[in-house]
Amino acid sequence: MVGEAEELAERRAAVAELGAELRTLADLLTRTEVGADVLRASARQLRELAPALHERVRGIAQPSSVDDLMGGVRMFNPVIGAGNVIAPPLRIEIGPDGAEGWCTLGQIYEGPPMYGHGGVSAMLIDQLLGHAAAASGNPGVTTDLSVRYRRPVPLDVPLRVWGRVTKVEGRRVFAEGGITTAAEPDVPLVLAEARFARLRLDQAGRLFSRLASPDAANPDVAHD
Amino acid sequence: MVGEAEELAERRAAVAELGAELRTLADLLTRTEVGADVLRASARQLRELAPALHERVRGIAQPSSVDDLMGGVRMFNPVIGAGNVIAPPLRIEIGPDGAEGWCTLGQIYEGPPMYGHGGVSAMLIDQLLGHAAAASGNPGVTTDLSVRYRRPVPLDVPLRVWGRVTKVEGRRVFAEGGITTAAEPDVPLVLAEARFARLRLDQAGRLFSRLASPDAANPDVAHD
Repeated sequence: MVGEAEELAERRAAVAELGAELRTLADLLTRTEVGADVLRASARQLRELAPALHERVRGIAQPSSVDDLMGGVRMFNPVIGAGNVIAPPLRIEIGPDGAEGWCTLGQIYEGPPMYGHGGVSAMLIDQLLGHAAAASGNPGVTTDLSVRYRRPVPLDVPLRVWGRVTKVEGRRVFAEGGITTAAEPDVPLVLAEARFARLRLDQAGRLFSRLASPDAANPDVAHD
Repeated sequence: MVGEAEELAERRAAVAELGAELRTLADLLTRTEVGADVLRASARQLRELAPALHERVRGIAQPSSVDDLMGGVRMFNPVIGAGNVIAPPLRIEIGPDGAEGWCTLGQIYEGPPMYGHGGVSAMLIDQLLGHAAAASGNPGVTTDLSVRYRRPVPLDVPLRVWGRVTKVEGRRVFAEGGITTAAEPDVPLVLAEARFARLRLDQAGRLFSRLASPDAANPDVAHD
């Protein structure tokens, strides 16, 4: 069993390492001014890497072997997943008053010149509020999200995303949150309110264990 | 001059090609089940590509040479940019009734198991409504975005994002939009309303030409 746990830890570390390298290249591509020949040579070399990674891939309905959905490990989540190039990734901490998240947005998140994209702000908050809802004992799916953009979100500056559940009425869960810089937690850049539909425990279990999926009966790794 | 135009077209094509390869690898990383050794070997090879791309990079305040911000070319925008790995990319068309966009979300956009992340939906809509506002003669920045999640957004299915300006009051621009599948444009998956603060022409020009930025006086490519 120790061997298995070590192997899992090792694969998780390797996924995070490859994710970080992809993130570095993605950032570099938005900033590089080298000639087309260099860009094309890089593209060729990337193409040569794909077959090895493609040798064993999971099916869409199968959870990744490095994830632990009930345990909260989602390495490929587009906001918190170290193995997903889209994710900054946001690092979330749960406290007595809700959730707080920390990240820095680089060049690939640019919307208006020199500032973060408004949709990226919405994405960070949506994810964080989901964690705040789950941490309060009310895991659910977002039904409504309202975002107010008060000030532009700077790039390359440590940011703080916060959120907390404000009210639970039957199956409806209400939450609020926002984004500030880490340096000025009292100056709101973005504010948001959200409503979630609370899942019953069996629904949450089904959603995250994928028991309802046709592939759940066949947990082997897919080859395609 | 023909030479310059051809060189620009060539660099744009090369940026898109490298962007596509990065997107392929990013997708593969979320699906691969190969061992840690293969993942680490891939990471090593990616690391070796970085120095060549890093030889000439622009500063954060300088527009990319492949962009034409006033002309609407934003190759690194996180929603529509072929050179940004975050972007599906969304392909936007402007029509008499507003804007429509088309994309397919792969595995890297997964939020709840097997469905698109709610924040990604918000990001697609925010971008599209910005185009709808600009196309109506009211370019602006988003001040409010409200999103209602009606049905889960499927992965690997062609999607349609739509939006239009509904009202202009002084400097406030109101817009609405949503997401459907391309196959069922009458079944709303996500609905949204947004408000924009209209920019005066000189503000829009300053925002997009970056005349206000300290580096504008020094348009040379940065080396770092």
